[in-house]
Amino acid sequence: MYDVIIVGGGIAGLGAAIYCGRFQLKTAVVGEKVGGTIILTDDIANYPGFKQISGMDLFDKVQEHAQDYDIEIIQKKVNNVEKCKDGCFKVKTKDKTLQTKTIIFATGTEWKKLNVPGEKEFENKGVHYCALCDAPVYKDKVLAIVGGSDSAAKESLLLSKYGTQVYIIYRNEKIRAEPINLKRVQENKKIQIINNTNIIEIKGDKFVNSVTLDKEYNGSKELKLDAVFVAIGHTPISDLAKQIGVSIDKKGYIITNDDSATNLNGVYAAGDITNSKFKQAITGVAEGVKAAYNVYEYINNELPVCGCMDDE
Amino acid sequence: MYDVIIVGGGIAGLGAAIYCGRFQLKTAVVGEKVGGTIILTDDIANYPGFKQISGMDLFDKVQEHAQDYDIEIIQKKVNNVEKCKDGCFKVKTKDKTLQTKTIIFATGTEWKKLNVPGEKEFENKGVHYCALCDAPVYKDKVLAIVGGSDSAAKESLLLSKYGTQVYIIYRNEKIRAEPINLKRVQENKKIQIINNTNIIEIKGDKFVNSVTLDKEYNGSKELKLDAVFVAIGHTPISDLAKQIGVSIDKKGYIITNDDSATNLNGVYAAGDITNSKFKQAITGVAEGVKAAYNVYEYINNELPVCGCMDDE
Repeated sequence: MYDVIIVGGGIAGLGAAIYCGRFQLKTAVVGEKVGGTIILTDDIANYPGFKQISGMDLFDKVQEHAQDYDIEIIQKKVNNVEKCKDGCFKVKTKDKTLQTKTIIFATGTEWKKLNVPGEKEFENKGVHYCALCDAPVYKDKVLAIVGGSDSAAKESLLLSKYGTQVYIIYRNEKIRAEPINLKRVQENKKIQIINNTNIIEIKGDKFVNSVTLDKEYNGSKELKLDAVFVAIGHTPISDLAKQIGVSIDKKGYIITNDDSATNLNGVYAAGDITNSKFKQAITGVAEGVKAAYNVYEYINNELPVCGCMDDE
Repeated sequence: MYDVIIVGGGIAGLGAAIYCGRFQLKTAVVGEKVGGTIILTDDIANYPGFKQISGMDLFDKVQEHAQDYDIEIIQKKVNNVEKCKDGCFKVKTKDKTLQTKTIIFATGTEWKKLNVPGEKEFENKGVHYCALCDAPVYKDKVLAIVGGSDSAAKESLLLSKYGTQVYIIYRNEKIRAEPINLKRVQENKKIQIINNTNIIEIKGDKFVNSVTLDKEYNGSKELKLDAVFVAIGHTPISDLAKQIGVSIDKKGYIITNDDSATNLNGVYAAGDITNSKFKQAITGVAEGVKAAYNVYEYINNELPVCGCMDDE
């Protein structure tokens, strides 16, 4: 019987684990991918205390920090979560059922797809979702980012370090980057913004060689390029939470309060999976920390003895 | 005219400054003491990303990080804050009046002191004010908590996970812990309550090795121990906020919502000065980050032109 199982091994989950360890809770972090999306980010300058660090290095530091305490990290996919009648939970992987008094969901998000012809066919052959992972093979090539968020802007800057030319293809009028990143994009001679435009097909031979736009650009709907990086947002990974009745918002994010608590007793959430307005590594970690504190308080003050015994 | 003045130069204030800088807001941090209470903490093991760091080093890293952006740090006491009729604010130091569209209060708290001989001399050498921060270094040592609040009781329980013996030294008859914590304290064989007793001196060599009590305990006024944790409360520094009508709770903390906003338009708060339940460096910094984001949103979306002109 664990005191707490943290589902999801990204930076918010590991931040929670540090404090669970400090509170001497019996703690497991369970997730298929340890690292989460932050390890796919090249350059992090907004985690106070680290002026500049790669996502991988920042994650490693937080993970090492967590491993300094007596916690377990179980690198397995969680297939199923169940609520026991007496207030505890079961967390099931392929080959094990773990019992726990509380759960912290830190399951994060995955990338949204364009859902256009060619996207699936050329995945990893010119269609990519992670500039950091895949940009380096496109040295001196023509590249495109699809999207208009701050992340898309940052990825375009990263791509410009490799490619000869980078298009930002965005369906609306004006990209929504943070001012500092917008300024950098505007000053970067390699980057051109194609606004009010969508990709409707991705074409190629063995690898991508062009895309079809829904509007002419420089006199043509065909745009020659070597790779398309899709940065149009994220889909929250909240199916497991939904299974046990956790409230989610319209977009699928887990609704949490200022204590990182959900609508269910003993269930908390932290990081990108929550409905927080402003999602950053630092705020996600702080949510994990608050979740850990509230788990500790809940176990000490509110939780009756439980053991999933009634279901057996 | 500043976009934002951050009153208070602790880690929460500087965390806010990093993001204000990223949002390209015209930003000043104004405070008498740059550094805040964190620089008084020897050993920080609970800021995710830094397994172990001194408070001073952590603060320096965050300050350097902030100075990487175009912000000002003005090391002066703020004597007075005024609200202008048109929605802006004046922030006055001894020799200057600054105008700003918004304010983030990050003024923090002071630890209440015992005010006994040895307390200052052995600070961080066996005299501590934060069990969660500093308990882990006292594994298998004899420890004392001074105070009788629920927090003191909870800190004694935490200390008991590290030390071999924990004294609660309390000036009154009966500690005021929540029943469940009281029960736990009473059932914990490591913890002993010394009631109706005060420490009148803290003694040691390089580090604390005993305290003198004002009443005999087990036949002696000298009590051998390795560390004293003072848990007699904090004093919030909220006078400036009160001056302009910011709502504070009964204990003097600034009431904030999940956006780090106060009851007044354009006024935010972050860190130990807020009424957040769980106050840590990481949560304070995250509150500063959220305050910065909401300042940026407020200035872009809600604030009419202002300039304190109407008052002149």
